[in-house]
Amino acid sequence: MLKLYDLAGAEPDRRFSPYCWRIRMALAHKGLEVETIPWRFTEKNVVAPSGASGRVPVLVDGDRWIAESWDIANYLEATYPDRPTLFGGAAGQALTRFYQGWTDGVLQLALLRLVVLDIWRHCDPKDRDYFRTSREERLHMTLEEAVAGREARLPELQRMLAGVRLTVQAQPFLGGSGPLYADYVVFGAFQWARCISDFKLLAPDDPVAAWRGRMLELYGGLAAKAKGYPV
Amino acid sequence: MLKLYDLAGAEPDRRFSPYCWRIRMALAHKGLEVETIPWRFTEKNVVAPSGASGRVPVLVDGDRWIAESWDIANYLEATYPDRPTLFGGAAGQALTRFYQGWTDGVLQLALLRLVVLDIWRHCDPKDRDYFRTSREERLHMTLEEAVAGREARLPELQRMLAGVRLTVQAQPFLGGSGPLYADYVVFGAFQWARCISDFKLLAPDDPVAAWRGRMLELYGGLAAKAKGYPV
Repeated sequence: MLKLYDLAGAEPDRRFSPYCWRIRMALAHKGLEVETIPWRFTEKNVVAPSGASGRVPVLVDGDRWIAESWDIANYLEATYPDRPTLFGGAAGQALTRFYQGWTDGVLQLALLRLVVLDIWRHCDPKDRDYFRTSREERLHMTLEEAVAGREARLPELQRMLAGVRLTVQAQPFLGGSGPLYADYVVFGAFQWARCISDFKLLAPDDPVAAWRGRMLELYGGLAAKAKGYPV
Repeated sequence: MLKLYDLAGAEPDRRFSPYCWRIRMALAHKGLEVETIPWRFTEKNVVAPSGASGRVPVLVDGDRWIAESWDIANYLEATYPDRPTLFGGAAGQALTRFYQGWTDGVLQLALLRLVVLDIWRHCDPKDRDYFRTSREERLHMTLEEAVAGREARLPELQRMLAGVRLTVQAQPFLGGSGPLYADYVVFGAFQWARCISDFKLLAPDDPVAAWRGRMLELYGGLAAKAKGYPV
């Protein structure tokens, strides 16, 4: 069976990496069973055989170790071509990159400023110093400063989500009538937040919230049943 | 020959609608010749046969009038299937919607706050009152207030473009090795700005600027040769 190293918190069943969630959803989309192995930020040596710089997700398929969510998604698409497609062809694969770029470079940065202290609170004790130091360096401020006044930044998040909103008002999923990997990329960010924070990101009547609800229920409620907070 | 009603300024050859540019590029992509007809904001009755609410682009193909850039792009894809594809299939078509949503709902709003007064200056005299009134109503401020201190908002634009930047660092076009309609949607916003404003939006070493340069040169420099300002 496939194995996935999956970021966990102090509780082994709290899985909160947005990048790992992309792959958890992609594996379910392909109908592939996977054994997830809880992994902590500081266990860099455990995933060294992947050749990546000590980050997850790392997928193990027989004797192959694959790192980086984008590479794993492409590996799954190439290795299991008879299963439902993640991209819908070469153009779809290319067009999915912007979803990843926007999620990595815009959406997740905004969410980090809202929930980073909640992440730290849920980290495994042995990860806390590493997490605080590395994130404060990246943010150029303390975690407490990063989230200060976060309610006041919610309108900015709503404006940032206008592209997603206009899309899911026109069709059920970013991928059209059904979800594609693009959906999992953007959804991973929301699932990340939900798994470690009770901070409400979306108004209940926001079409983005309705789309997130559809995502949570996919594959027998895979994401909805994961340990986290109600949205 | 196909005809396209195309927004023009006081000078008939200054064409500056981002939505019309999407279709100008899409027509060139399909290798279709088109006669463009200069149109002004207040000439609502001229495009009434399209059934749309007096906006351009409007494409006339024989006795068919088609309005709305998204509908025109889909019409072209369906009607000229043997020409180069704009979407790369059904998944690509669905995945292109977010590019449109993000461009309409995020990018163009930000650009409007940078160049709206320059648009007004280039409007046909008969359009100026209409343009000022409708845009000031939409922006809840005067055009002069909207662009005040615009230099200070450039860093925000750079951050907003992170998704495009990460994508065009990984591949030449948003559509992959060659451009797709998604490229034309995002590029239309930059061409709109270039046609009516000399305000510099991008640093010369920004990968987004390199991508914009590639877009400008497509189809014999269709966009580069259009009346406007150097980027």
